[in-house]
Amino acid sequence: MSPKSTSHQPLYLGIDGGGSKCKATIVDAHENILGSGIAGPANPFHDYQQTVNSIVESAQLALVDANLPSSDLERLVAGIGLAGVNLPSIFDKMSQWQHPFSKMYLTTDLHIACLGAHQGGDGAIMITGTGSCGYCHINGEVSMVGAHGFPHGDKGSGAWLGLQAVKNVLLSLDGIEVPSLMNQIMLDKLACNTGLEVVEAVAKKPASFYAQLAFVVFEAAERGDTLALNIVNEGAAYISDVGRQLSHKHPPRMSLIGGLTTKIIHYLDQDIVSLLSKPISPPEIGAVIHAQQLTRQTT
Amino acid sequence: MSPKSTSHQPLYLGIDGGGSKCKATIVDAHENILGSGIAGPANPFHDYQQTVNSIVESAQLALVDANLPSSDLERLVAGIGLAGVNLPSIFDKMSQWQHPFSKMYLTTDLHIACLGAHQGGDGAIMITGTGSCGYCHINGEVSMVGAHGFPHGDKGSGAWLGLQAVKNVLLSLDGIEVPSLMNQIMLDKLACNTGLEVVEAVAKKPASFYAQLAFVVFEAAERGDTLALNIVNEGAAYISDVGRQLSHKHPPRMSLIGGLTTKIIHYLDQDIVSLLSKPISPPEIGAVIHAQQLTRQTT
Repeated sequence: MSPKSTSHQPLYLGIDGGGSKCKATIVDAHENILGSGIAGPANPFHDYQQTVNSIVESAQLALVDANLPSSDLERLVAGIGLAGVNLPSIFDKMSQWQHPFSKMYLTTDLHIACLGAHQGGDGAIMITGTGSCGYCHINGEVSMVGAHGFPHGDKGSGAWLGLQAVKNVLLSLDGIEVPSLMNQIMLDKLACNTGLEVVEAVAKKPASFYAQLAFVVFEAAERGDTLALNIVNEGAAYISDVGRQLSHKHPPRMSLIGGLTTKIIHYLDQDIVSLLSKPISPPEIGAVIHAQQLTRQTT
Repeated sequence: MSPKSTSHQPLYLGIDGGGSKCKATIVDAHENILGSGIAGPANPFHDYQQTVNSIVESAQLALVDANLPSSDLERLVAGIGLAGVNLPSIFDKMSQWQHPFSKMYLTTDLHIACLGAHQGGDGAIMITGTGSCGYCHINGEVSMVGAHGFPHGDKGSGAWLGLQAVKNVLLSLDGIEVPSLMNQIMLDKLACNTGLEVVEAVAKKPASFYAQLAFVVFEAAERGDTLALNIVNEGAAYISDVGRQLSHKHPPRMSLIGGLTTKIIHYLDQDIVSLLSKPISPPEIGAVIHAQQLTRQTT
């Protein structure tokens, strides 16, 4: 038997599922990370079947990585944090899943991110990745700001930044906005020359597509493009506003997480930046902490 | 035999197809309207099969209305204007349709709208309905402004107005924007009380859904709501910019058409309003004119 695990001890599975991928981590009762795995998208709002497939696949990959047999799936006490389950109808559907684990403790991707960032303690997080939002958890009370989705919300997110840039490029190509360095970087990135080609390239595309264009805005802004700077500053002002809303709850810690963190932090208001602490653990560890907390409550 | 038609005369079919419906009109060689029909959506960018079904169904309904046998479908010289065929790939696909008509002359919904508005003469049109755009046709040369689609374009359109309003309602419910009369009208319209309910109500919705919310913005603006007025003014400023771009081409006539015309015209710049003339005929008659013009060229 592997020294990593003994069969009478509980094994915890932490799942962080979102629109682009699903991360799984297996942790033993002594907080040792035994293995991890990554599978495809797991956002039950977009695709329920794909979500449950991705969760199981990432868990099995984590078992392989941990040198554990795939039959150990049924030993796992799973903490599962997913995008989309903040919507009650989606939470209900996922809760009814006949999962293969020993136990399943389901919660939002925001909750596990917050638990991870503050190692299970109270605190607040702001996320700027494909989407954007704020989340605060103090004494069991949850507050949320944003997390509205694309295209009607998620200001300051990668998808929002990319969409603003595409809008401006199209307006510039029509002669309604002034031309800009950002236009040319965007046209190169999309391999387009005309507005019609841009329209064909972006039509019907999801948030994840636009989020990949966010770096175009940052690159142009860093090179002094006024249009790009205006977009980044408007998005960052929103993230600062979210931070200010969260600060009214007096969280003991606040972290900024998500794929845009290292870029957008330079454009946030100083009063918000001064409140930020580095996240301690990633969301999948937050999912493990969630499972451990609820296991303790129920045993 | 019906006095309306003799079998040796050409019969023209005009089709105006878009995202919400497909209108058909049958006209004889003496410009008499013999009958008309309306079927479901006909936007080949969204659904090719539905589009060809809607075209045939609307044409058959027009034949019934004209007291003509359904076998006369094959006599019809069809002018067909469709949304979406400004994209070359979509134009090619529709062109390859094995249609049941005698001839098919395919063009964009914008072209037939312009031909109708100016009774076949040169001119320009601006459209503000579910989408928005400008189109100019002078001496065979076409210019377009906008027509980019939702959510990356179509500023000033119904879908754009509705989306701006939903964004602002969500920001207000989060305490980031000031509350507004528009919020309450929107929450009543959507039958929602919280941001989470709004997100569930609007998530994944198409342009046509948001366009139905545009009247919320106009209603609030007419009642003096500053937030709503700012949205309407920003959208109208874009439509005025589109008109200004078109005016540089010196079109002999310019018309404003589409479902928002009677609302948004009050917010356009006066220099643009002074250029506008009423459209002479609707787009489906423009489609007939298109077929007649090309028939003359090819015979």
